[in-house]
Amino acid sequence: MDLLALPYLDELSHGLANLSMFPYFDMAHYIVSVMALREQPGALEVSRASPLACWFSSMLYCFGGAVLSGVMLAEPPVAPLSNGTGVLLASIVWYLIFYCPKDAVYSSAALLPLRLVLSGMKEVTRTWKVLGGVTQARQKYKDSLLVMIAIGWARGAGGGLISNFEQLVRGVWKPETNELLKMSYPTKITLIGAVLFTLQQTHYLPLQKHHLMLVYTVFIVVNKSRMMLTGSSSSPFAAIESVLYKTLFTGHSPYSALTGEVKEACIDNGDRKSAAKVNGSSRAKEESKRSDAKNSKKIN
Amino acid sequence: MDLLALPYLDELSHGLANLSMFPYFDMAHYIVSVMALREQPGALEVSRASPLACWFSSMLYCFGGAVLSGVMLAEPPVAPLSNGTGVLLASIVWYLIFYCPKDAVYSSAALLPLRLVLSGMKEVTRTWKVLGGVTQARQKYKDSLLVMIAIGWARGAGGGLISNFEQLVRGVWKPETNELLKMSYPTKITLIGAVLFTLQQTHYLPLQKHHLMLVYTVFIVVNKSRMMLTGSSSSPFAAIESVLYKTLFTGHSPYSALTGEVKEACIDNGDRKSAAKVNGSSRAKEESKRSDAKNSKKIN
Amino acid sequence: MDLLALPYLDELSHGLANLSMFPYFDMAHYIVSVMALREQPGALEVSRASPLACWFSSMLYCFGGAVLSGVMLAEPPVAPLSNGTGVLLASIVWYLIFYCPKDAVYSSAALLPLRLVLSGMKEVTRTWKVLGGVTQARQKYKDSLLVMIAIGWARGAGGGLISNFEQLVRGVWKPETNELLKMSYPTKITLIGAVLFTLQQTHYLPLQKHHLMLVYTVFIVVNKSRMMLTGSSSSPFAAIESVLYKTLFTGHSPYSALTGEVKEACIDNGDRKSAAKVNGSSRAKEESKRSDAKNSKKIN
Repeated sequence: MDLLALPYLDELSHGLANLSMFPYFDMAHYIVSVMALREQPGALEVSRASPLACWFSSMLYCFGGAVLSGVMLAEPPVAPLSNGTGVLLASIVWYLIFYCPKDAVYSSAALLPLRLVLSGMKEVTRTWKVLGGVTQARQKYKDSLLVMIAIGWARGAGGGLISNFEQLVRGVWKPETNELLKMSYPTKITLIGAVLFTLQQTHYLPLQKHHLMLVYTVFIVVNKSRMMLTGSSSSPFAAIESVLYKTLFTGHSPYSALTGEVKEACIDNGDRKSAAKVNGSSRAKEESKRSDAKNSKKIN
Repeated sequence: MDLLALPYLDELSHGLANLSMFPYFDMAHYIVSVMALREQPGALEVSRASPLACWFSSMLYCFGGAVLSGVMLAEPPVAPLSNGTGVLLASIVWYLIFYCPKDAVYSSAALLPLRLVLSGMKEVTRTWKVLGGVTQARQKYKDSLLVMIAIGWARGAGGGLISNFEQLVRGVWKPETNELLKMSYPTKITLIGAVLFTLQQTHYLPLQKHHLMLVYTVFIVVNKSRMMLTGSSSSPFAAIESVLYKTLFTGHSPYSALTGEVKEACIDNGDRKSAAKVNGSSRAKEESKRSDAKNSKKIN
Repeated sequence: MDLLALPYLDELSHGLANLSMFPYFDMAHYIVSVMALREQPGALEVSRASPLACWFSSMLYCFGGAVLSGVMLAEPPVAPLSNGTGVLLASIVWYLIFYCPKDAVYSSAALLPLRLVLSGMKEVTRTWKVLGGVTQARQKYKDSLLVMIAIGWARGAGGGLISNFEQLVRGVWKPETNELLKMSYPTKITLIGAVLFTLQQTHYLPLQKHHLMLVYTVFIVVNKSRMMLTGSSSSPFAAIESVLYKTLFTGHSPYSALTGEVKEACIDNGDRKSAAKVNGSSRAKEESKRSDAKNSKKIN
């Protein structure tokens, strides 16, 4: 990273590190988060049936990371509420996104150019949150890399990690999936960030903090923009992940054999049910039950 | 509120403020709470299948507010268990309500006159709990109105707010509903109380504490008695709520249009399914699935 | 317990009390716990679909007690992660059990003689955990027997008590059952241990700590071995439980009558549905719904 020794880039990274998230970047984070909530299936109905549940869900989208990392460190999960200005801003955003006459705010913010800028700004806040989580954890657990990674991750990707419980507020319950079972791109990139910042903070990574902040921020902003513009959801790490996965987690032959069987059996829907029986797994059974339910619905 | 300047009422409010909740009012709270649990569908079966789960559920009904506000302030949620006398009293009540020979205790307590008195006394404890929550939150977060309201509300209406998890103890899971999505009267009145006491404590409401306690207590007791005697569950705030709701939360035209469509489509059950398809919302789908299930049950 | 005054046994109990759990006994605990996870339906699929969710589930199996007792005492639930050596050991065990080439580790550990030894060693760690929980609770709540029992129980049987949430990590959700509704043998024996150690620590039980440790450890190890060798899952307390239950929890006549009706009605599956209707309980309804679902599946 000798590139970072260039005077221009060094200055830029110092400038970035001293950037204040409040109010513009925070605002962009609130707007993008509340818009993501609004685009969940059923969210509009909830906003109409119970504005309070909708507001609470929005706050979990906006402050989920702070709530989750608070719980994990046994600090009051209500603490984000004590940040009056933040909650006020987020509440105004929530109101405008959901209830603005003629839906003016949502319609304009959903335009691609504006959304691109807002999403980019939201990504910038991620760097600050991950770093904040790592340093907060370090004050309590000086030498525990794992705790620092966990808290940095929770702070940066909290909204996703607690999504099961956020959905419950809106009366939705999808136990069959969560961010650990099937990580989304933001959760993954936040985990990588948490690892990098933890290594930097514990001096295992020979890089200065503001340099890492610049590199990480540029990477996530550029990558997010690329994904939005191309409409692709492919992770830039797919290749590495695949190699790592194949190297580490496929040594276990009996299961590979089992999976082979299942794959063969799963040629069509009818066979999937028999595979479920062979397999004996509850999840496969549930899946086949769901497909049964769909079939019977179609028939009805 | 010059009325409160009258010597007689002032004295009364002082007397009320110095009233001790222990043991009579606390006892009434335990009795009414455990009776409410017993009247839940399936609760009797649980009491027979697993007395321990039933006891734990009862404790959540009796001390849910303290547990929830404890969690929210990162104070030990086991703390209510350390109040030996309270737990002992509540456990005796639990035992007598569920397992008394010939069901003598439940039968007598369920008689209207006695139940009326007990429910009135339980309502009195609400004032103390809300105020307790607000002052507890104020010690930690001096200037945060929102935190005070949240903790006061949680302390006063905790049993309802955690009902999803209380039900889970009994093996019941109803994710499609919760107290935020559809607030019950006690939850609503507690929220209003939390707001009032928070405003009083932060001197935004120019009223003395004991006067507010008297006014609030009289209001909730009278209103509860009225509701029990007339069997109505209509909220006294229905009109205000409706106006507020229409003013604040219906500006959002695209959704109104959508709802209009849905309403038209929802003329009969058969159409509801098509509405669900148009709507594309997961909740509507679930509803139609449920109605499907009912239909198929009837047919079977 | 004059037997314990014998010099030989006294020495033995001192030796046991000074035994270090790290690393051999801890290791046995990790191995047996992760094997138990692997034997859950669907766990192998999860290990393949998401190694991270599988790892997190394994950690909850290994450190569930510490996490739960941490939450209950408002201490950071991430604390177990800060025990680097423990997490490292548990992670190695997790990796070998799930992903070892040719499944060599699981196959050997599953051989009865080895498994018997490992399970015995795991039971020994239970004594230490329960005692640790009780003494930890005692530091915060000096005179509260109930809190000590609760924390001792949570520490010793945490993995079981939080199983609903551990399953959720793997995408499995079984709200209709939990360890309070239907206690398993380990949960029961841990509760008894928590009561005994609490009484000992508060001097209600006139026994020395190391003597109680010896007696309790020998009892749980012998009993576990007996259960594994005979393949029985009958609790040694079944008789006492039954007497206690009949004495304490069957006084409630209306329910007994109700149950009588239900039992009569439940002669076959068809009648169970009508019983459900008579009964009006949601759980019975759910059961009949499930049986309906099964029937319709068979038909399809």
